[in-house]
Amino acid sequence: MVAIGIDIGGTKIAIAAVGSQGEVLASVRFATEPNLGFKTALSKMISGINHVISDGVLKGEMLDGIGIGCAGPVDPARGTIHNPHTLPTWDDCDLVSPLAERFAVPVRMENDADAAASGEARFGAGRGSDPMVMLTFGTGIGFAAIVKGQIYRGVAGEHPEAGHIPTIADGPECYCGLRGCFEAMASGTAIDAAGKVSGFADGRAVFAAAAAGDSLASGILDVAVNSTATAIWTLAHTFLPQRFVLGGGLIDDHFELFAAHARTALSRAVLLPKGRVEVVRASLGNDAGVVGAASLVMKTGNIG
Amino acid sequence: MVAIGIDIGGTKIAIAAVGSQGEVLASVRFATEPNLGFKTALSKMISGINHVISDGVLKGEMLDGIGIGCAGPVDPARGTIHNPHTLPTWDDCDLVSPLAERFAVPVRMENDADAAASGEARFGAGRGSDPMVMLTFGTGIGFAAIVKGQIYRGVAGEHPEAGHIPTIADGPECYCGLRGCFEAMASGTAIDAAGKVSGFADGRAVFAAAAAGDSLASGILDVAVNSTATAIWTLAHTFLPQRFVLGGGLIDDHFELFAAHARTALSRAVLLPKGRVEVVRASLGNDAGVVGAASLVMKTGNIG
Repeated sequence: MVAIGIDIGGTKIAIAAVGSQGEVLASVRFATEPNLGFKTALSKMISGINHVISDGVLKGEMLDGIGIGCAGPVDPARGTIHNPHTLPTWDDCDLVSPLAERFAVPVRMENDADAAASGEARFGAGRGSDPMVMLTFGTGIGFAAIVKGQIYRGVAGEHPEAGHIPTIADGPECYCGLRGCFEAMASGTAIDAAGKVSGFADGRAVFAAAAAGDSLASGILDVAVNSTATAIWTLAHTFLPQRFVLGGGLIDDHFELFAAHARTALSRAVLLPKGRVEVVRASLGNDAGVVGAASLVMKTGNIG
Repeated sequence: MVAIGIDIGGTKIAIAAVGSQGEVLASVRFATEPNLGFKTALSKMISGINHVISDGVLKGEMLDGIGIGCAGPVDPARGTIHNPHTLPTWDDCDLVSPLAERFAVPVRMENDADAAASGEARFGAGRGSDPMVMLTFGTGIGFAAIVKGQIYRGVAGEHPEAGHIPTIADGPECYCGLRGCFEAMASGTAIDAAGKVSGFADGRAVFAAAAAGDSLASGILDVAVNSTATAIWTLAHTFLPQRFVLGGGLIDDHFELFAAHARTALSRAVLLPKGRVEVVRASLGNDAGVVGAASLVMKTGNIG
């Protein structure tokens, strides 16, 4: 069995044929170019799917379907995208129906955080844990929870935005309506911004200076890791997952820094079951997006 | 159809026969007296059950089962109680098996917060909402979430302790390991303690003085309602419930005060679906404990 995974971001789209063990059989990658409009992107995606099918799928092999992880918000029930910030010309466009018609297979779309979490739960660092919470540290903070093998959804099937829980009193203002939320303190954007205020070129420069012993840089990172520890404490007392899976650009290079503080916070939490809540690093790496997307439509042990 | 509900607290035990519309058909209430040991309490409970059956259950009528809500923590899978603080002599005692044997019906035990939430979801203010989050303001802060008709559970079936999420930086220390958690700021105990520090006799005196315009008392309540608003913001961005149901002693008298601040906070949350997250008052009142407990074993539309 093979499934197609499509990972749609504001700058690039990746498409892969993914095997039943989560292995990438063939893949393509191209620029999203939202300025060219939705129809152009759709036709590039159709070519991309055909390409990975001819490269990665054996003749006569069954295709489970096409899974799509898209930079949110999306409407999984309608199959439409609502992301005026990064995909402005695609607003309310239906991506699911044309692909389902064209390829005559089930097509399912989720936001990229839910798709990545689905992949980690099935093939990656979340395997065997229930519930599982995934946090992705990138431009923003992505959040998803997998509970009894299902993507957790709130009212009207909506995706909770737990990147915007309070962490640091009187932190910088976030567009979410709060000051000092998790995303405003610990995302790549937040560390960039805090670094610039203190005269660093960007977040990378902050990490480098902190590693070299600069106390100003260390202070900025302290705030980010403390915010993360507070967010993880909060999520441990709400979703109470067996495992936190941390992923994203920041985590690739600095997992131990973020995890150490979070583990210390959890170890002090009297009301958590002792030693039962783990903090681990995501394991699917660059393939997380396409593998997660493909996992959405895989039949056996489907993450729903 | 009739079910028996047992509501066990540290000071009293209530037992009722509850009908299929959530109506109390007969009830008894007696002191818990944990100092007399578990066996004495068990035999008093058996008498109580017999009493409400003979008073409230028609001859030949089917008994759905016996549901128990107990001041937590409990182990729902094993049917045992682990509450050394309020039920010290009962620790690890099995209440479910002897009742199941004696009455030959299904018996199920949950902690009291989960039982009350089950009752509100089925017969009370939570009816028709999904997910539903219930917060009970009493000695502590009780929390429970009902998701797709099921009590939400974390790792190993454990009950999340969302009364202990962070709300006020540098608030008083809580036994949970955090400063300024929701329970440390907004529970009856917290308001009592803050009042005493400022020279009030107790929490009731704080509410009375605040109503009479005392600014010191108003300041104490501002902290409690702000903590509540922050907790509700946090839970709205994690569980994303359709409805928050607030109950407990404080809420009976001061619902509007707590709800107004929470609603204002939610209305400012850019990432919540507009107008979809409600804050309402629990409606089962004094019967919440026994009706909630009975609802655990009711067959139709069972809350699992």
